[in-house]
Amino acid sequence: MMSCRIPVLFSGLLLIANVGAADELRDRANAIFKPIPDKVTQVRGQAVSDDQARLGHKLWFDPRLSRSHVISCNTCHNLSLGGGDNVPTSIGHGWQKGPRNSPTVLNAVFNAAQFWDGRAADLQAQAKGPVQAGVEMNNTPDRVVATLKSIPEYANAFKEAFPNDKDPVSFDNMAYALEAFEVSLTTPNSPFDRFLKGDDKALDAKQKEGLALFMDSGCSACHNGVNVGGQGYFPFGVIKKPGAEILPSGDKGRFTVTNTATDEYVFRAAPLRNVALTPPYFHSGEVWELEQAVAIMGDSQLGRTLKPDEASAIAAFLRSLTGTQPQVAYPVLPPSSADTPKPE
Amino acid sequence: MMSCRIPVLFSGLLLIANVGAADELRDRANAIFKPIPDKVTQVRGQAVSDDQARLGHKLWFDPRLSRSHVISCNTCHNLSLGGGDNVPTSIGHGWQKGPRNSPTVLNAVFNAAQFWDGRAADLQAQAKGPVQAGVEMNNTPDRVVATLKSIPEYANAFKEAFPNDKDPVSFDNMAYALEAFEVSLTTPNSPFDRFLKGDDKALDAKQKEGLALFMDSGCSACHNGVNVGGQGYFPFGVIKKPGAEILPSGDKGRFTVTNTATDEYVFRAAPLRNVALTPPYFHSGEVWELEQAVAIMGDSQLGRTLKPDEASAIAAFLRSLTGTQPQVAYPVLPPSSADTPKPE
Repeated sequence: MMSCRIPVLFSGLLLIANVGAADELRDRANAIFKPIPDKVTQVRGQAVSDDQARLGHKLWFDPRLSRSHVISCNTCHNLSLGGGDNVPTSIGHGWQKGPRNSPTVLNAVFNAAQFWDGRAADLQAQAKGPVQAGVEMNNTPDRVVATLKSIPEYANAFKEAFPNDKDPVSFDNMAYALEAFEVSLTTPNSPFDRFLKGDDKALDAKQKEGLALFMDSGCSACHNGVNVGGQGYFPFGVIKKPGAEILPSGDKGRFTVTNTATDEYVFRAAPLRNVALTPPYFHSGEVWELEQAVAIMGDSQLGRTLKPDEASAIAAFLRSLTGTQPQVAYPVLPPSSADTPKPE
Repeated sequence: MMSCRIPVLFSGLLLIANVGAADELRDRANAIFKPIPDKVTQVRGQAVSDDQARLGHKLWFDPRLSRSHVISCNTCHNLSLGGGDNVPTSIGHGWQKGPRNSPTVLNAVFNAAQFWDGRAADLQAQAKGPVQAGVEMNNTPDRVVATLKSIPEYANAFKEAFPNDKDPVSFDNMAYALEAFEVSLTTPNSPFDRFLKGDDKALDAKQKEGLALFMDSGCSACHNGVNVGGQGYFPFGVIKKPGAEILPSGDKGRFTVTNTATDEYVFRAAPLRNVALTPPYFHSGEVWELEQAVAIMGDSQLGRTLKPDEASAIAAFLRSLTGTQPQVAYPVLPPSSADTPKPE
């Protein structure tokens, strides 16, 4: 009997030790990160109406926002694929390749600013960019408004969504409706979030080791908060510039926004929620494997060559950031009329 | 009081006369057309399993079936837009323009054969075409199978959908799963269908006039059956060839399938279900207005210049062919693995 009792006692002690370690790890993590809230129903402090969100849902999938009538918001921020497009840089009008990898729309509401260089303060401002970009949807605000006004059901939907506006079908309101939809695109309930809330079993041993390494090595100095990133701007290559294929010299990042020398090759710290779903990595989209991306970050940002099992543990932790993906209906869009501008 | 009674009696007589006319029109129509059934759950006589339809639903929206990872089945057969793409001819790999207008997938299960020239006997055979076409998805069966096998959730889903196959992830099974999904893409309950089933008020007076004209003028000689077309092959320009912009001389239609001289410029009679949602019209996609398309058909197929109010009444009838659009979820797709072939 004694030979039985000892292991039982021993495993009991281990359990207590683990619980203590998990609690400590959780406390440290909760000081740096926050779980994704279950639901977001506000845009910058203002409640989103159902009419606005419903309209935004249709606009999100409508290729008629593009000049060709082929490209929608969802083309590059595909809700089937983690809210990005899983290609190095997006393909837009005329099969042109965009300059940077498409950032995920999922949880984008939690970023301090939008785009890799933070040039849009919020999602409404962001939404106006790709619609007009020559390499993306290649449209103009006037043409978009003419398109939306030509479609009777859209004209009504804008009236319902913006009942106090004299001229409700506007480029601004289009962007606001898109934002009203996008705030619903959150991914709560990831294993990491469940761990933060007290579920020790939500992360396995390797993921916990990765989380500890992520905090101890300095990753969380930039990648923190609810989105595990997306809050501040940092030079890519704090310690050592990565190779030109990963950091092309022609893209000076936030410098083009601020025109300040110290902002050369500065980018918004990538938000890492659902990062396992959104390869390839970095603004250049040149790295497909999460372990390799982690190793590059160690070199360039921390000046530290991570051992393979360290990079692997951090990647395992990052895979715990995949949350419940939004369940979205594929909308039936209102038909064009004879007045709708034709695709070009 | 008498002055009141007479109109009441008179309107009573009119009602009886209308009911009689509607019944006669309905009887004639029911001899030529058939309502869309509420649900299709079979593929060529074989019951579709939920696992097959679910898998097909994912494959339908998956851009990784294309070489670029950007184009899915739904790009050109957009379920938001009546199952076509509302551009003259589809835009595919490298922004190449396809040779013909994208036919709607909605109710395609009821067509006798698929494509404008009927070169695919069924939807399974059809599905293999665009995936391989250089101007569309530009992929190869081997590469598609390698892609699907590299994604563990797909490998499992194929196993569940095709439990008796030794090697369930195959190009054939991909196409079969797509077909299993596509048979659900029907649009019952159009005003015309409700009229066929006995609801006199489902069509207004102009639509009834249009229906009568459609049958009396000879349109229904080719456009008949459940899909109001899609059953047989006819020369475009039976009586008079339309202009070269509408009937380009380079596209000889079914001739390229049968290599038979009498099949030059022969096409499958377009199925007209939901035709109001699928401009532009004809295989060349050069005509945007339904009334104009009807007038061209009158000239070219019937040798009859339809008066504007006749073309307008027929178009009004055709608008009654828009049924309840399928309600489809936008699926969350299984993530790629390190072995997944990269986009090109």
